[in-house]
Amino acid sequence: MVYRRIFDDAISRLKDERRYRVFADLERDAEAFPRALWRRSKDCAEEIVIWCSNDYLCMGRHPDVIGAMTQAAARHGVGSGGTRNISGTNHPLVELEAELADLHGKEAALVFTSGWISNLATISTIGDLLPNCLILSDQLNHNSMIEGVRRSKAERKIFRHNDLAHLEELLAEAGHERAKLIVFESLYSMNGDIAPIGQIADLAKRYNAMTYMDEVHAVGLYGPRGGGIAERDGVMDRIDVIEGTLAKGFGTLGGYIAASEAIVDAVRSYAPSFIFTTALPPAVAAAANTAVRFLKQRQGAELRALHQRQAMLTKHALSAAGLPVMANPSHIVPVLVGDAELCKAATDMLLERHSIYIQPINYPTVAKGTERLRITPGPLHTDAHVAHLVESLVDVWHSLKLSFVEKPKILEFKREADAHCTYPEFKRAAE
Amino acid sequence: MVYRRIFDDAISRLKDERRYRVFADLERDAEAFPRALWRRSKDCAEEIVIWCSNDYLCMGRHPDVIGAMTQAAARHGVGSGGTRNISGTNHPLVELEAELADLHGKEAALVFTSGWISNLATISTIGDLLPNCLILSDQLNHNSMIEGVRRSKAERKIFRHNDLAHLEELLAEAGHERAKLIVFESLYSMNGDIAPIGQIADLAKRYNAMTYMDEVHAVGLYGPRGGGIAERDGVMDRIDVIEGTLAKGFGTLGGYIAASEAIVDAVRSYAPSFIFTTALPPAVAAAANTAVRFLKQRQGAELRALHQRQAMLTKHALSAAGLPVMANPSHIVPVLVGDAELCKAATDMLLERHSIYIQPINYPTVAKGTERLRITPGPLHTDAHVAHLVESLVDVWHSLKLSFVEKPKILEFKREADAHCTYPEFKRAAE
Repeated sequence: MVYRRIFDDAISRLKDERRYRVFADLERDAEAFPRALWRRSKDCAEEIVIWCSNDYLCMGRHPDVIGAMTQAAARHGVGSGGTRNISGTNHPLVELEAELADLHGKEAALVFTSGWISNLATISTIGDLLPNCLILSDQLNHNSMIEGVRRSKAERKIFRHNDLAHLEELLAEAGHERAKLIVFESLYSMNGDIAPIGQIADLAKRYNAMTYMDEVHAVGLYGPRGGGIAERDGVMDRIDVIEGTLAKGFGTLGGYIAASEAIVDAVRSYAPSFIFTTALPPAVAAAANTAVRFLKQRQGAELRALHQRQAMLTKHALSAAGLPVMANPSHIVPVLVGDAELCKAATDMLLERHSIYIQPINYPTVAKGTERLRITPGPLHTDAHVAHLVESLVDVWHSLKLSFVEKPKILEFKREADAHCTYPEFKRAAE
Repeated sequence: MVYRRIFDDAISRLKDERRYRVFADLERDAEAFPRALWRRSKDCAEEIVIWCSNDYLCMGRHPDVIGAMTQAAARHGVGSGGTRNISGTNHPLVELEAELADLHGKEAALVFTSGWISNLATISTIGDLLPNCLILSDQLNHNSMIEGVRRSKAERKIFRHNDLAHLEELLAEAGHERAKLIVFESLYSMNGDIAPIGQIADLAKRYNAMTYMDEVHAVGLYGPRGGGIAERDGVMDRIDVIEGTLAKGFGTLGGYIAASEAIVDAVRSYAPSFIFTTALPPAVAAAANTAVRFLKQRQGAELRALHQRQAMLTKHALSAAGLPVMANPSHIVPVLVGDAELCKAATDMLLERHSIYIQPINYPTVAKGTERLRITPGPLHTDAHVAHLVESLVDVWHSLKLSFVEKPKILEFKREADAHCTYPEFKRAAE
C-alpha cells in the first residue's frame, strides 16, 4: 500500500474527466460590489465583475448589516466560545431564532452553522424518530438533503422531479398509517424551477404525511416579508418544517429550520451534528438578524422588486441576443452550453477577455449534456453591467462556435417593476 | 400516525432520564470576560462568571482579533457569497490556509465551516478513497470522528482508549499490505488526558498505516508556536493529517485539516460536505488568521504560560480543598460528581447562589457514574476568581452532601510559570 499514489490517482481521474476545480481567489469590495478583485497569481490582481454570487440581494455588503457585525464583535467578541449547551448560546442567536420563527409563522426556529448541516441534522433526526418512517425525496434534491436521508435509518424512495402523480403513487402505496416524510425544495437552484408547494401539501394532508421543504434559494427573496416561495404562495402554514439559509438572501453564514416547538426541540435535543458543534458567533447572528429584519420591511420589498427587475432584464436581454437561456420563473439565469470542456472554456474566456466571473456548472452538479453557465443577477448589477454581459457572452459564443437559438423567444419583462423602488441605497443599481 | 405525539414523547424520554438540556442565554462582554450577562428570563439578567468556555485563551475578545473582523467586514462585507468553488473563495481564507499549513509544518491546509464537518468530511473521504480500508478508531473519539468513520464505506475497529497494545494487535491482524487509517485525538476533552502520539506514529510506521489526529483541544494552547501537543512533542511531521479548530484556542469559528498537498486536494475535490457548503466569511477568516499569527509569537507563548498557570492553580486549589479533581496532565479540570441529578443540581446551585456558570457533563457525553463538572480556567480568570470558585464549590459540595476526597493529593504546581508573562493585555489576569 503506497498511500501517496492513491491520492494522486484520485486527482488525476478528476483531471482526466475535466472535473478538476480551481478556486478563484477573490477579494470582494463591499463598496464596489459586484466589482471585486481576482488574484490570478501571487503578483497579479485584476478587477472583475461577479455574476454568480448567491448573496442574491447583496445584503452581505449592506451598511446596516456590516454595522451590526462590527458592533456585536466589539461588544461580545468574535466567537461564541462553545457548543449551544456548553456556554455557546449567545443572546443575538436567541433573538435571531425568534425573528426566524416569526418570519415563517412557526412556533420556533433553530440555527445551525450551515444550511448543509441543517438538512443533514433535521432530515436524519426526523427520519430516525418516526417509527418505520418512509422518506419520499425529490429526485433533484440538494446533496445535503440526500446526505440527511441517507444518514437516517428510514427507508427512502425517490419521486420524479416535481412529479405530483409519482409522489401520490408512492404515498398511496405506503398507506395512511405509515409514517411518511416528503422532502423537497421550493426553488431548485440549477434550473430555477419552482415546486408546486400547495399541491404537495394537499397530497401530504390526504395521505397523512409530514412535509420538509428547503427554501434556501428563496428566503429573503420572495414573499411580502421575505419568507420565501411558501409565503408568496400563502402556504407557509401547510409545511411542517421550512429549512433556510442565512448565507444567500440574508448575506451572512449559517442555516436554520422553522417548525413547531415539538419538532425543533426534538432536533435540538437529538441531532449530534447540532449538539457537538460550536455555536454561531454573536457577531454573525447579529448581522443575520439585521438582514432578516430589513427584508421584512417595505425597503426589503423594494429591494426584492429591484432584484427581480435585474434578473428579468438579464434573461430578456440574453434571450433577445439569441443566447440559450433555460426558461424558468425565478431569478436564476441558466444558459445552456451542453459540454463540460466548452463550458469551462466559455467561463475562462469570459474572465480573461471580459473580466466577467461566472463559474461553469458541470457534472455531477448537473447531468452530462446539460452543462451550463448559472448567472445570478443582483440588485447592484446596473443596466450597463447587463449590456456588457450580453455583449461579452455573444463574443464568447461566436469565438467558441456555440449554438445560438434560431428564433429567440422574447421573455416577458415587466418594466414597471423598478418604478416602485424608492430605497436610495439600492436605487442606483437601476439607473 | 399522530406525528406530534412522536416528538413530544421523544422529549419526555429525555426529561424522564434527566437528560433534557436547557441552554443558558448568555451575553459575553468582550471587555469584562470571563464575566458575562446571563438572561435567566425575559425580564431578569444577572452578571455571572463563565468557567466552562472553550475559548481557552480568550482570543475571541482579543482587541487585535476583533479589529481584524471589523476591518475585514467593512472592506469585504459580512459573507462570502457562495461555496468555495462558486464565488465563495476569499483572499483572507486563502491566507488563513497558508498560515495553518505553516503552523503544522504541512504542505497544505483546508478550512471548513466547523470542526465537526472537518472530521466528517476528511475521515469519510480518506476511508472511501483508500481501497478496502480498515479504520482503527480510539474508543473515546469525538462524535464528529465517529460520524466520519460511519459515513465511510471502510470497515472499522475500535481500539481501547490510548491502548497501544490493543492498537498493535489490530494493526498486526490487518497485515502490512491492507490500507489502514488510525484515527485518534491528541487531547481528550472530557478527561483531559493526552495520547502517546509518538508511539502511535511508531506503530503506524511499523505496520504501514496512515494517521489522522484531532488536535482541537490543543491547537493554539500547546507547542512553541501553538501547533498543539504534536508540536510540543516534536512529532508533527509523523502524523499524516492534523485536524484542528478555529473555535477554541483561536477564539473564532470553523475547523481545518493540515496535510500533504495530495491529501488536501483529494478531500477538497471529493468531500460533498466541503464542496456543497458556503465558505467561511472573509471577516471570520481574517479574525482567525490574526489569532493564529498572534499565538505563533512570543506573546502567544506568554499567554500559553499564563493559561497553564491559571489551570494548574485551579486544579491545585480545588484539590487542596478536598474536591475530587480527576487527575490529568492538561488544562482541563474535571471534578467528579458521579450522578446525573446531583451534577445538574450542583451546577444550578453554582449559578443561582454563586453566579458561577459551569455546565453539567452527563451521559451520553460521558459514561453513567462518571458525571462531572468540566472546568476550563482561562488566562483572564484572576486568582480572586479561583478563590471564589473554590469557596463556592465547597459550599455546594456541603449543601448537596457530595463526597470530598479524604486525603487530598496536592497536585504539583509550578509557581514560576507566571514570572515569564510580560504581555500587559493579559497580565492583569495574573494579578
